[in-house]
Parts: sequence; C-alpha cells; structure tokens
Amino acid sequence: MDLMSIENPAFLKGLSDEELKSLSEEIRHFLINKLSLTGGHIGPNLGVVELTIALHKSFDSPKDKFIWDVGHQSYVHKILTGRAKDFDTLRQYKGLSGFPKMNESEHDVWETGHSSTSLSAAMGMAVARDIKKEDSYIVPIIGDGALTGGMALEALNHIGDEKKNMIVILNDNEMSIAPNVGALHQVLGRLRTAGKYQWVKDELEMLLKKIPAVGGKMASTAERIKDSLKYLLVSGVFFEELGFTYLGPVDGHDFDDLFEQINYAKKTSGPVLLHVITKKGKGFSPAEKDKIGTWHGTGPYKIETGDFVKPTITAPAWSKLVSDTVLKLARSDKRIVAVTPAMPVGSKLEAFAKELPDRMLDVGIAEQHAVTLAAGLATQKMKPFLAIYSTFLQRAYDQVLHDVCRQRLNVFIGIDRAGLVGADGETHQGIYDIAFLRHMPNLVLMMPKDENEGQHMVNTAIEYNDGPIAMRFPRGNGIGVKLDPTLKTIPIGTWEVLREGTDAAILTFGTTIEMAMEAANQLESQGIHVKVVNARFIKPLDEKMLTDLLQKQIPILTIEEAVLQGGFGSYCLEYAHDHGFGANVIDRMGIPDEFIEHGDVNSLLSEIKLTKEEVVNRILAIARKKQKRA
Amino acid sequence: MDLMSIENPAFLKGLSDEELKSLSEEIRHFLINKLSLTGGHIGPNLGVVELTIALHKSFDSPKDKFIWDVGHQSYVHKILTGRAKDFDTLRQYKGLSGFPKMNESEHDVWETGHSSTSLSAAMGMAVARDIKKEDSYIVPIIGDGALTGGMALEALNHIGDEKKNMIVILNDNEMSIAPNVGALHQVLGRLRTAGKYQWVKDELEMLLKKIPAVGGKMASTAERIKDSLKYLLVSGVFFEELGFTYLGPVDGHDFDDLFEQINYAKKTSGPVLLHVITKKGKGFSPAEKDKIGTWHGTGPYKIETGDFVKPTITAPAWSKLVSDTVLKLARSDKRIVAVTPAMPVGSKLEAFAKELPDRMLDVGIAEQHAVTLAAGLATQKMKPFLAIYSTFLQRAYDQVLHDVCRQRLNVFIGIDRAGLVGADGETHQGIYDIAFLRHMPNLVLMMPKDENEGQHMVNTAIEYNDGPIAMRFPRGNGIGVKLDPTLKTIPIGTWEVLREGTDAAILTFGTTIEMAMEAANQLESQGIHVKVVNARFIKPLDEKMLTDLLQKQIPILTIEEAVLQGGFGSYCLEYAHDHGFGANVIDRMGIPDEFIEHGDVNSLLSEIKLTKEEVVNRILAIARKKQKRA
Repeated sequence: MDLMSIENPAFLKGLSDEELKSLSEEIRHFLINKLSLTGGHIGPNLGVVELTIALHKSFDSPKDKFIWDVGHQSYVHKILTGRAKDFDTLRQYKGLSGFPKMNESEHDVWETGHSSTSLSAAMGMAVARDIKKEDSYIVPIIGDGALTGGMALEALNHIGDEKKNMIVILNDNEMSIAPNVGALHQVLGRLRTAGKYQWVKDELEMLLKKIPAVGGKMASTAERIKDSLKYLLVSGVFFEELGFTYLGPVDGHDFDDLFEQINYAKKTSGPVLLHVITKKGKGFSPAEKDKIGTWHGTGPYKIETGDFVKPTITAPAWSKLVSDTVLKLARSDKRIVAVTPAMPVGSKLEAFAKELPDRMLDVGIAEQHAVTLAAGLATQKMKPFLAIYSTFLQRAYDQVLHDVCRQRLNVFIGIDRAGLVGADGETHQGIYDIAFLRHMPNLVLMMPKDENEGQHMVNTAIEYNDGPIAMRFPRGNGIGVKLDPTLKTIPIGTWEVLREGTDAAILTFGTTIEMAMEAANQLESQGIHVKVVNARFIKPLDEKMLTDLLQKQIPILTIEEAVLQGGFGSYCLEYAHDHGFGANVIDRMGIPDEFIEHGDVNSLLSEIKLTKEEVVNRILAIARKKQKRA
Repeated sequence: MDLMSIENPAFLKGLSDEELKSLSEEIRHFLINKLSLTGGHIGPNLGVVELTIALHKSFDSPKDKFIWDVGHQSYVHKILTGRAKDFDTLRQYKGLSGFPKMNESEHDVWETGHSSTSLSAAMGMAVARDIKKEDSYIVPIIGDGALTGGMALEALNHIGDEKKNMIVILNDNEMSIAPNVGALHQVLGRLRTAGKYQWVKDELEMLLKKIPAVGGKMASTAERIKDSLKYLLVSGVFFEELGFTYLGPVDGHDFDDLFEQINYAKKTSGPVLLHVITKKGKGFSPAEKDKIGTWHGTGPYKIETGDFVKPTITAPAWSKLVSDTVLKLARSDKRIVAVTPAMPVGSKLEAFAKELPDRMLDVGIAEQHAVTLAAGLATQKMKPFLAIYSTFLQRAYDQVLHDVCRQRLNVFIGIDRAGLVGADGETHQGIYDIAFLRHMPNLVLMMPKDENEGQHMVNTAIEYNDGPIAMRFPRGNGIGVKLDPTLKTIPIGTWEVLREGTDAAILTFGTTIEMAMEAANQLESQGIHVKVVNARFIKPLDEKMLTDLLQKQIPILTIEEAVLQGGFGSYCLEYAHDHGFGANVIDRMGIPDEFIEHGDVNSLLSEIKLTKEEVVNRILAIARKKQKRA
C-alpha cells in the first residue's frame, strides 16, 4: 500500500495478518530508505515495526493513549498517523521532529526526549481518566534501558500501589544505547531465558499435587507454596512484587503472539506489564549486527554497504579529545575513575573502558546516582571524571548542588554537548547548564576555545583539588588546531585576550569565539577597534581583566550559546553593578527565553540572531553610544 | 555511665549485653530530656538507639564507614562519637548540626539532609576501597521511606549488579515521615509479617525432600524449585532479585538478634541487605503512639504530658492557608488534584485528603515522579496542585523544565519553605528556586506579601490556564492580616506600590517586605523618600512599572531572601541593560554565593547582612550617588 496515503491508523482494523506482514515490510523498506538520506534513530524504529502496528490495530488512538518513552522510537507511529510524507524533512529545521510533538498530531499525547518519563505521565493520565470516569487505555511503551532511570522506578512503585488500569509495554531489545548495566537488566535477562511463564506455572501446579498430604503446619506451608507459584523461576517476580500483572515474554515480531497477549492485557484489571522482546535494527543487516550502539542513531548511510556517509573531518571529536586526555592522565594518576550514565559510546570512553576497566563505571541511565556516586568516590580522595551531556545533567541538579558542591568535593564534570545540539531539538539543547550551575557555591565552570586549550583544561581540572570543577564542550568536532605535546595548567579564573581593541570589547567563550573574531576583523576595516576576550572561565570571572575594562569604560558585549537569563552575561552585569561600575554599557547576546526546536545549528543561530552580522550591529550600536557620551 | 565523657565509640567493645541495655536507657533518657528543650528529630533517633550502639560495637568507625541516609537519625551516633556535650546547642546558630557534618567529627564521612543519597555515596566509597585495595566495611543506613526515592533505586540496581561488598541496613520503622506509600512499602509490609526467612527456608527444604522422584523434565523442574526457594514467600525476594543477599527481618531493639545478623552480614561477600525493624519514638510514650508523624521532628515539649511548648501564634501557617484555599476551590472545580511527595502533614493536606481522597495523591519520596505525574494530569485538562518544599523541588529540576514548562502545561506548583528555613540548615534552605526557575521559558513565578494576597494568588494560579505557574511562600506562619471573604484574581505580571517615594525605590517580595517598609519609614524621618514596591511577580516582571522607575532614573535596591546569582535582582539588571537603561543605579541585596548553615533565621539574616540596617545603609549610598550626579 501507499504509506503516503495513510491519514490515520483506522485502516489497520480491516487488515489480515498477511497484509499486516506486508505492511511491516513496506514500513521497514521506507525507513531504511528515508533514513539513509536524513539519518535518524534507525535501530530503535526497525525494532518496533510489528509492535507499533499491533498496538495501533488493538487500541484506538488518540482515545487510547500511547506514551512513547524517550520518543525516538516513534517513527512507525508517525507513519501510521499520517506523517509518512514528512520524512524527507526528518530532524531538519522546520521539518518533522524525531520525537513526538503535540503540534504534529493529535496522536502524540505526550512529548519526550529525555528518558524514563512515560510511566509518570501515564499515571497522571490514568488518574485523570478515572476522576472523569472516562474509559480509555493508557499505554506507555518503555525500553529496558529507560527502566533503570530513577523516576521510572519511582513511578513503577506508585503505579503498583495505586492499582490503576494501565498497560505498560516493556520494549526489551536486550540493548538500549549501550549494553545495559544494572541488576534490573539481569532480571530481564533471566526472564528472557525463562520461557513462557504460564507453561511453567501449569507444570509446577501439577508437580505440587504430588506432594504427599501432611498435617498442620506442613499443609499450610504447601498452600503457601501454591500461592507463591507466581514468584517461582523469577519470571515476572520483580514486577509482580511491585503490584503489576506480568505478561510475557512475547516475541515482538510475531503478530499472533502480540495480539494474543495484548488482548489478554486489555482484559486484565489493574496495572499490567507486557514484556515484549524486540530486536533493534530488525530487517537491516548492518543494524541487526550492531553490538555497541553504532546504529542507534546515525547520520546518512549507504544502504548496500552499511557505510556511513560522513563529511571529511580532520579535527578530533570533542568527546574523544576529552576522554583520551583523561585516559592519558589516568595511566599515571591512580585517583582517576571515569563514570558515565549509559553513554560510553557517545562520550568516547571505549578506550578507557578497555584499558582501565576497574576504574570505569557505566551506571546505566541513572544520572542522579552517577553524580552522587562520583561524590562518594571523591570523599575517598579519588578523582572522579563524570562524563555527561549537558541536557542530562539537568536530571542531577540537586545532586550537583547538595552532594558535590555543598561538600566541596573534587569531582570533575565533563559537560558534553553544551550549546545547541541541532537535530535532536528542544529536549536536548545543552543551553541551561550555565544558568543552573552558576549559582552553585564552590563550583568552577569553564569552556575551552579549541581542542588544544581543551586538553590543558582537562589537565587543569584533574590537578585542581579545591572542590568541584566542570568543563563544558560542544557537540561535534574541534576546529583542527595542533595539540601541544605537553599538558599545561591554566590558572583558575583567568581569561585570555585574543585581540586588542579600545572601542569595544567582546567577552565570549567556546563556539562563539569564531564569530566574535570575524566580526571584530570586519569592524577593524571600518575603523572600529574591538578587543576580543576568551572568557574561558565562566565562574569565577577574571575579575582583574573585567575590572580593567569597566574602569576604562570600554563598552562590553557578552556572547554565549546558552540562555541569557541568569547566564554569563548576567554574571558580568551583576559584577559591574556590585562593584560600582553599573553605568558601563554592557550588552548581551545569547539564547532568548523560549524553547529552541530542532534543525541544523546554523539555521537555529540565524533564527535567534546569534550571528556575526548581529555581533557587528551590536558593536556598532554600543560603540556609537560611547562616542555620544564622550 | 557519663555520656558527656564519651570521646569515641571504642569503649563499647568491652561492654556486656547488660551494660549495653543500660547505656541504651541512658541515651534515651538523655535524648528525651535534651530535645524537650531544643526540639529536634526525636522520633527517628529514639528508634535507632540499639541499632546505632550495635553498629558501633560491631564495626570500627571511621575505618568502617557509616552513611546515614537523610541524616536526621544520627543523634545517637553523635553521642557515641563524643558530641553529647554539644546537645544543648542542637540545631542552633553555630551549634551542633541536626545532620552529619564532616567538620564536627571524623566519624561523619558523608553529609546529608536530602533523602536517598546514601546508597550512591556508599557505592562510590566501595569502589574507591577496592581500587585502593583497602579493607573496610561500608554501611549505609537507609529508611524504608527513603528507599522509594528514584536515586536510591538507581543505586540499588547498580550495586546489585556490581556485587561490591557492602552492608545496607534497611531501617524499617513502618512509617517514615508520613504513612508510606508505594508498592515497595507493601513489599516491606509483607516481609514484616513473613517471620524468619531462614526458618521458612529450612522447613521448605524438608518439605521438598518428600516430593516423589520423577524423571526427566519433572526432576529438573524440581531442581529449579529448590533453586528458587529463596524467592518463596516473598521474603527478601525483591532485594535478592536485584542481587543482594537478604538478611532479616531482625528486631532492631534486641541486641542478641542484631549482633547475630550483623555478624552474619560481615561474613557474607557481595552486597547484603539487613532488614531491621525499629519502632520510631521507642521508649517515649507520646512519640511511640504517634501515627501521623507529629513526633518526627518537633520543637520543645513537656516530657510529662507530651504537650508541645509553642509560642502563641494567631496567624495561620502558610502551608495551611495555601492548602485550605486549594481545597476550597477544589470543592467546585473538579479539575483540581493535589499531589505531594510524602509531605501530606508538612504541606497541611490532611483536610484535602479527608474530603477529596480520590483527588489527592501522596506519591512517597519521589519528587521527579510527582512533577511529571502532575504534567500527565495537566495533559488531560486537570489542574494539578503540586505541594512541594523549595529544597525538594531541586530534585525535579529537569522534570519542571523538560516536562512541565516545555509542554506549557497548566501545573500549579506551590513552593513551600521558600527562603531560609533555620534549624534544618544548609541542606534545606529554600534559596535556589528563583535562580533555577527563572530561566525556564513559559513559567510564571510569584510570591505573596501576606496571607490575604496569598489566598488571592492561589486563586489566580488555579484560574490561570496559559502554562505553569508557581507560588513560593515561606516556612512558618503568616503575619496575621485579615482574609478577604471573596477570592480575587491578580493580573499576571503586576507589582503593587506599597509606599511612594522619589529618592530611591525598593523592589522586593514576600518576607523581606517588612524590613523594606521599616527601613523606608526610618529614612523618611531623615528626609529621604523611598518608594517600596511589592514585586510579587518575580517572573514576568512588571515591565511597565520597572520601565517607569528606570526612565525617571530613580535608584533601585532589590531585596530577595534567595541567592543573588541569577536571581530577581539579576533579572532587573538584565531588563535595564536590554532596554537601554543600563546607566541606572541598581543595587542588589540577597544571599551571597556560599552555603548558609543552620541557626535561627534572624541570626542567619544578620550574618549575611540581610537586615533593616543594611537596607538603610544601601539606600543612603544609592540616594547619595543620585544626588552627586544631579
């Protein structure tokens, strides 16, 4: 059938099993082709083709509510709800989002990006349904990786207690982004090998009938064994303990099996956990064979060979530069321990894990635990390096403040993907960390201008022993500068003058330095001399240099690829006013007070006017103001 | 014995069981007496007298490490580590902290206040120990309530997987702050009634020996039954599933039982969970009888009667005012649902729970889940009221940003205990919420000047349907104003002039309005006319009023009982500079960039110079600056 003609999932009701199988193949073909051009989360979506079709055939969306945890596995759902035609624009500026979006479809009832939120949202919807005495199925779909996130466990606990009707689909693909860690995963592993629960239960009941009759206490114990049958063989025991009816495991690529169990789930009252085994990348050989998550989310690729179409890049990836520098230092510094919340590949910690496995901890999707675990290590004079994306550090705000900063522990936080991240969009932008970290006492926060300064900053962070220190660095690759052979230490709280000038000064750091330098060069040709400062320490400020600028009444423009509210520019304003320099002209550029959607970073920067042209305009304006005053 | 003479716990090694029992009685007597004068967490500490003694006798602190979750149950530990003499100053300014503090004793190896951090910290310490090839016991002590916190569950999962040696003491007092919620608590409940695990196991093995021999598949199933014995009768099955060796339950007030099981735990390799049943308030009749948490933490009381020594207060408690107003509205507005993370008593939601039980959700210690649950409710056109303390909202930073604000959902967050909280100290100060909420798009943040405005703001929040709205209010009682009989709506983003004046203007809100008014009155007598503005909307600002002040070049002083960095004053600075009014004098008062310890609020305010005198000085300085310019 023509996928482009699908308007809503109602057509599924009339399809035969054969037609459903054929539809599955068409959708796989569509995804493999479309994503070869746009990139996207190919592995997770190929894994849920049959599951998504079975769900949409069995339930009535949007009356029944599907809540996709994380959300990057919602492509099939998007196709079945009338969005096949938009896949050419997937994850592009103003194009189809890679995650559920309410403004795309009434079938998207919950927006995500971060992991482990689906069960809490589902519980809210179930409570609302029951208060309103409505009748609908609430169906969160959550992966085994996302289940290790603390808030998912909080929700499981609450749902099991309240006994609301809800069908939780556990999409167990044996591997989320990285091979899963954690005891919960082992439980799932045992479930996987335990075979059909019901069969075992029947067999055991037969067996127990053969226990000779005994009197009194013994008989009652035998009764208790029978009552406890459901706990045997660990099948589902974990979830049953929490108050769920456990169903499964079922083959997530077998329609018969799926329909049977979904129907059983629909008839069961109280919370049900339906355990579905799926294969990531199903139907596309390179993705099926993937063991480490290379095919979780990709750029464009060649279908025939499974090779990635990559732009030729000579500079190292930021994540790799940072992790490799940490590894280099860890060889001689036995205090160093690397910690990652489920991102060993994204954070490029594979080499560290291979060489120093005892000093590398992948804790699974568990950001809060990761931060406080690092704090615990630091109390014992270890030097933990926590590799975490800016957007996921949000999950551990309290742990950074309450456990790390308050106890002034020597934790080194490597904040990856800081700034705009592009295709992943508004849930993943790394633009809040400055605003949420700046007010934490005892913390040093810095950002390097290039990978050479980056490696020296890593060294600085490891050598620093006066409390927590964080280095933010962007997504993607460096700019290709030469790396010094010997690592240096950068004095804390010192900025660097990149370019002299007296008509105005730009204070900026990281990715925005390039546009500042270009703007300054352009202005030079117009006779305006702009100083450009690499404000590499966001906290503490270089008070000496800042005071000097303020005293000389040089108009200042701050630029940050981060939210303006409470950010770096705001810090400079506070400093100026607190020290009697309030009358100085300080203009700020950065990200306005709104959420920034997906798209290529350059389009986003243009939209929010974080461009060289705007820098030029702003400098001209503040330089003129100065002239007027003079 | 003389508790005052204890220097360290070594003396315990030589004591007989009789002497230990006598010591327990002395400690109980000491606690009941001392706390009757100072107040403090009497219930939790009376519950762990024998447990703490047994732990200190069985282990060697500080080589072996005790990690007290939450930490308010560490009083007995403090007595046994040489701090009995300091109890007269408990929780007072510059006195003994109510929580573990590294600067008090080498026996305090981890500082807390917020719940559920102990397991992550313990894991960090265990990893460090093993890397350094040291030999010590790591002993986190965690309550059943704290175990429902997401990060504790994340840690359990990781610990069970890594199999590090660790002895987790589960201090199960059947009731943490409020009667516990959640399936996990039900599991513990079943454990409580299941009797001795080992005994049952032995009995079952005997029983199984009577199963007639069968061939092939049956035999193997029988083997599997035997292997699965440990999962029977739900005793410990939850924790064993996660990879722990489960021991218990043991009577936490019986030394023989405690020593036996602790010794068994010490001999067991891998992670052990020792389930200890204790009685909160043990040995003090009013606290023992307490069912709802009244004796969890208290002020001074009369020992003989169990009556509280309370200052006569006529104004309503803020929590009660807010919750009662919500209840009043909920009677006719069926959209309203109240959500609390384990604080129904603290948030004064008892009346709501009693009258509208179906619309009241206590989710246990699970702040992240609470926020996203509220978001889920809001997607279904309900109007959730989330009652949460400022300091605990820190745990849900990401959920407020990613789930509530990003989806612009109509969640009403009542931020209780905003500002300095006093005796609980640095872990509990509610001083970060403005700085961490201000940069979240779509959020309205407000704070009322008195309880009458408070009730109107609650009404405003419920009527507001354009996204999330939060109202912060302080710990303690209102100021005793009359309440209007009819609720009004306050226009969003409007401030209120409390007092006219042209020499300077104070912008402030909530608790600091009083000192601003007093300072202004004092300055009036010196011929300086100060305008005082109730800046009740922290976000959005009243741009019209602020612009007017800036245009007239009236020097501004902002005052907030919250961190200065990125706070309300900072917001005013940003506004002034963004709109070309940068040259205005804007001075800011608030909380400096350091952690604020425990003590009565007035002492703390004096220490950080958040006083009327300082307001007068600051106004004099900025008013003079203006005169100079003129």
